[in-house]
Amino acid sequence: MKFIIQREQLISSVQNVMKAVSSRPVIPILTGIKIEAKEHGITLTGSDSDVSIESYIPREEDGNVNVEQIEEGNIVLQAKYFPDIVRKLPEKTVEIESDPNLKVTIRSGKAEFILNGQDADEYPQLPTIQTDDSFEIPIDLLKGMIKQTVFAVSTMETRPILTGVNLNLSNNVLKFVATDSHRLASREVPISNTNLEFKNIVVPGKSLNELNKILVDSEETVEISVTNNQILFRTKYLNFLSRLLDGNYPETARLIPEQYKTQIQVKTKELLSTIDRASLLAKEERNNVVRLTTQESQLIEISSNSPEIGNVTEEIMAQLMEGEELKISFSSKYMIDALKAIEYDEVSIAFTGAMRPFVIRPVNDDSILQLILPVRTY
Amino acid sequence: MKFIIQREQLISSVQNVMKAVSSRPVIPILTGIKIEAKEHGITLTGSDSDVSIESYIPREEDGNVNVEQIEEGNIVLQAKYFPDIVRKLPEKTVEIESDPNLKVTIRSGKAEFILNGQDADEYPQLPTIQTDDSFEIPIDLLKGMIKQTVFAVSTMETRPILTGVNLNLSNNVLKFVATDSHRLASREVPISNTNLEFKNIVVPGKSLNELNKILVDSEETVEISVTNNQILFRTKYLNFLSRLLDGNYPETARLIPEQYKTQIQVKTKELLSTIDRASLLAKEERNNVVRLTTQESQLIEISSNSPEIGNVTEEIMAQLMEGEELKISFSSKYMIDALKAIEYDEVSIAFTGAMRPFVIRPVNDDSILQLILPVRTY
Repeated sequence: MKFIIQREQLISSVQNVMKAVSSRPVIPILTGIKIEAKEHGITLTGSDSDVSIESYIPREEDGNVNVEQIEEGNIVLQAKYFPDIVRKLPEKTVEIESDPNLKVTIRSGKAEFILNGQDADEYPQLPTIQTDDSFEIPIDLLKGMIKQTVFAVSTMETRPILTGVNLNLSNNVLKFVATDSHRLASREVPISNTNLEFKNIVVPGKSLNELNKILVDSEETVEISVTNNQILFRTKYLNFLSRLLDGNYPETARLIPEQYKTQIQVKTKELLSTIDRASLLAKEERNNVVRLTTQESQLIEISSNSPEIGNVTEEIMAQLMEGEELKISFSSKYMIDALKAIEYDEVSIAFTGAMRPFVIRPVNDDSILQLILPVRTY
Repeated sequence: MKFIIQREQLISSVQNVMKAVSSRPVIPILTGIKIEAKEHGITLTGSDSDVSIESYIPREEDGNVNVEQIEEGNIVLQAKYFPDIVRKLPEKTVEIESDPNLKVTIRSGKAEFILNGQDADEYPQLPTIQTDDSFEIPIDLLKGMIKQTVFAVSTMETRPILTGVNLNLSNNVLKFVATDSHRLASREVPISNTNLEFKNIVVPGKSLNELNKILVDSEETVEISVTNNQILFRTKYLNFLSRLLDGNYPETARLIPEQYKTQIQVKTKELLSTIDRASLLAKEERNNVVRLTTQESQLIEISSNSPEIGNVTEEIMAQLMEGEELKISFSSKYMIDALKAIEYDEVSIAFTGAMRPFVIRPVNDDSILQLILPVRTY
């Protein structure tokens, strides 16, 4: 195997596949990055067996030459050293060449590294996914859906299924739901041009976080294919493959109250910074609980009290307030997460009493829903 | 105590004094920040008893009003909460008021915090230092001296005196020396307008690192006063007080070889990035050892070899090379630290054989000296 490649291209491909590489994988060879040279371009692969990422660099693209003097072949290089080497090489191009003894020479300017490679035949084959049954979604939109839900997955391994995001596609609507059983986040978007339907697909939150980091905001689309136990996200030069979580995702629709007793509308940023301030005294000891109290003249009081440290109160003006008086306590962290996920200037919050879950939505958009269970205080 | 203060001023003062506050100080009240309001302005104090920092905010400065409605008094507030509160308050001004029960009310816009304060009389008195015997040095220059030496202090507590930087002032020359017994860094600067002399003053490296963070690059001067066991750095609105280390600093002058067998001159950045690359394969296992070998035609080879991972070689061209042939191994980390500290384009390195310490200096400046002990390799 031999080729000469533009270093910037190689750096960004290596960064992408590194997102899947673990320092302690199940199979030792997965500590490496697989490099495959074909006449038409170079493919890098990284995997921890849960997530696998392939990044492709075409020989030529839009008239620019990315790779030259390609001699086909493949090799696996230690991920612990290869990325730093590529990043710190002195020149704009890098020559990579392997010999039959699996020695790999990396040259750039006057710098020459000779690394011990591993046999690419020992690197596990990635499952091939039929991509006939697939649908497309703009990258920006997918990133939005991930950001608006994935923070609500559980970090506890007691109910592993809750560490994933539940994906459903039916009637041309794609829906993401995440819950850790104390709060829930959901987002829907319409998908045209597909007859595909699936439900009870659960993608590990960790996979979606990595995917979100790799996908570059753009108006291009990502193609999504689902099998029994794998999901594939494919863009022009990237394949991102994740295993799915086994098990049944709980029915969440019934958690969402249908009738409300108190409803308020507030400016998102104003509520967010008020809650943020009120949480300053709470810190770890009391799980960051703050209290919301409705008052006369559309005022809302946010307060928190930590006997040893002190207390804080602040009033904000609601844009709208209707229904019963209310005094409710909740985790400021959950509220801050939910408000940050709603990218609208105004939110509507609907309560059904101090002990029932409440729902936060943008004022004029039903596709985003955030639900939080209150905290009982005495 | 009561005053209304510009929030930006308060934030930067709080950040400064926080550099001295420890979360586990010897005396519990030192987890707090002392606030003292006088008719002429506000003084904040933070201390961990090794380092104490006072930051002053004058009532008025250059015609701008920083503090209004001052009622004199003092209080101590928990450093765990106060800085975050100040940083996140909604308005440009903050009102701070304490009552006889040590309750402190902090108001900004509609936000109101009531914190439990502590009696300022219980806060230890800082030692007063006679500032008659003092000298001045531009802030930029002092920061340079710290950066060029402090990285070489020892981090091991086995010889506590080596965790500090040795300061000497004699014949109108101020000299900083630091060594961890494997390498040494020194810097001299001329000081005019003083008859002051001192030697065997050792300031903890940690104190100088904090001082360097607080001092803002400028052409103003800092006034330095020394007593038996304290050193005071004083700028217009800041007092930075550090204890000195007890004990005798070793005699270091005799470590510096007077005669050389091989001398090279190289471009600093070129050598730095070459050593940096050669150290990539070394990582932890072999303490980052790289080898330098002189070759024909003024070439220098930098190489490193880690049997399990691979090897790296790179040649750079010396600007000048004279004396005996040489093959020498040393810690790449020490070399990188030393080269970064020398802020000149070209360095001269003088060797006295493979087993003797070698000396790195800027080509045309004798005031900076870096010394490194080689590593024995077989």
